[in-house]
Amino acid sequence: MKDAVPAELLAFAETLAEASGAVIGRYFRQGLEIVTKSDLSPVTVADREAETAIRERIAAHHPAHGVIGEEHGRHQAEAEWVWVLDPIDGTKGFISGRPLFGTLIALCRGGRPVLGVIDHPAIGERWVGAHGHPTRFNGKEVRTRACAALAGASLFASSPHMFRDAGAAAFERLRAQCRQVLYGSDCYHYGILASGFGDLATESNMGIYDYLAAVPVIEGAGGVVSDWQGRPLTLRSGDRVLAAGDRRMHEAAMKLLAGG
Amino acid sequence: MKDAVPAELLAFAETLAEASGAVIGRYFRQGLEIVTKSDLSPVTVADREAETAIRERIAAHHPAHGVIGEEHGRHQAEAEWVWVLDPIDGTKGFISGRPLFGTLIALCRGGRPVLGVIDHPAIGERWVGAHGHPTRFNGKEVRTRACAALAGASLFASSPHMFRDAGAAAFERLRAQCRQVLYGSDCYHYGILASGFGDLATESNMGIYDYLAAVPVIEGAGGVVSDWQGRPLTLRSGDRVLAAGDRRMHEAAMKLLAGG
Repeated sequence: MKDAVPAELLAFAETLAEASGAVIGRYFRQGLEIVTKSDLSPVTVADREAETAIRERIAAHHPAHGVIGEEHGRHQAEAEWVWVLDPIDGTKGFISGRPLFGTLIALCRGGRPVLGVIDHPAIGERWVGAHGHPTRFNGKEVRTRACAALAGASLFASSPHMFRDAGAAAFERLRAQCRQVLYGSDCYHYGILASGFGDLATESNMGIYDYLAAVPVIEGAGGVVSDWQGRPLTLRSGDRVLAAGDRRMHEAAMKLLAGG
Repeated sequence: MKDAVPAELLAFAETLAEASGAVIGRYFRQGLEIVTKSDLSPVTVADREAETAIRERIAAHHPAHGVIGEEHGRHQAEAEWVWVLDPIDGTKGFISGRPLFGTLIALCRGGRPVLGVIDHPAIGERWVGAHGHPTRFNGKEVRTRACAALAGASLFASSPHMFRDAGAAAFERLRAQCRQVLYGSDCYHYGILASGFGDLATESNMGIYDYLAAVPVIEGAGGVVSDWQGRPLTLRSGDRVLAAGDRRMHEAAMKLLAGG
């Protein structure tokens, strides 16, 4: 049995998304004015400032917790509870004015993700999942859908070009068996899976920032997330993710990705 | 000089988008309940009902106008003014609960698109362009951005798999020269170009429903749209589109696509 995450931590995680989203909203689609103020790209400025806003709240309310953020590095990373932050996942989309980029906030306990937030501030959509709680989309419980056969599967990936060498061949084997593939959803596709509107998502060349938040969200909706070998994703995992709404689909996809 | 489209037609076109969006909103993310009512997929039901709603308004207010719709065929297609309709462009995204699908409404005069609406009802975003008027995004004027060099270009396409044979090789030549490629935006990427957040969009295996609305939107913002040979897009055009925010970029991209 997994210990339930205290409800107050779920509520706190949502305040982190709020704080981050308020910063990001000042930069999204505001490119030109911002660029002239700094040598940094607008997305870099937004990413850093949003991560700072989140870190300040964690330091104030949970000073014993660790933090690992894509922009500002590691702090107390060996603590029992560690937050993993990516304020802007989908930077290409962000700089293109496309509103599907997301803020990813994971909380790990003993190295395992136990709470995740996938927040899309530009469109006001948020998934929250945690051990011992049903996953919620904007407050409403969601479930993955049943889909056992690859021939009926809707597959998501950020881009086919993220897979290299044997990984590219493995992705092609999987894609060829699926009913359809959609690219370019960024982390939004993990939410789509949790809400039962898709079946599979796989990615490569990822960091822990890019996927740990998706684990509790999808698991709490009835789905499965692992690396390509079926191992659980942790603070020490590699660069590949396979998420499925249906455990049978996850098994079938792993067979096709084997050797990739 | 192009004749300016009467302002009342722009306002009328927006009412068509409103009527269509009201129908679509009843079906988006409502899959399961709807499927049980009919043999048709929810997206097909939504597409048909939305097109009917648009056609009823056109028949009531502009009975002499022709209509060509993806779902309900051709009506007075030889008229001087002809509407071209695709209520749900991006059906894969629609059935996946992804809010970037769009409603495309074009008005042609003498076979050429003179007015276009790209409407995204799920996120409340709309581009409207017409001869003699600046393109507007949610009421605010927008312009394409300058970008002459492919090395700086952000390229959009629905999917790399839409290009076949020589077309696939041509797309790869273009993609290899660009700074980045984003897939999966559906018609949203034409709006992105008009608003100056992207530089190039190209597609293949398209129907006139899929691209005519984009022409006045992008042209009215300062960009260029044509087929891969640089010919204007009309009611009788083929299946390929090349759109650019900067005329120099359009020329450079055409050279790479030549022979595709």
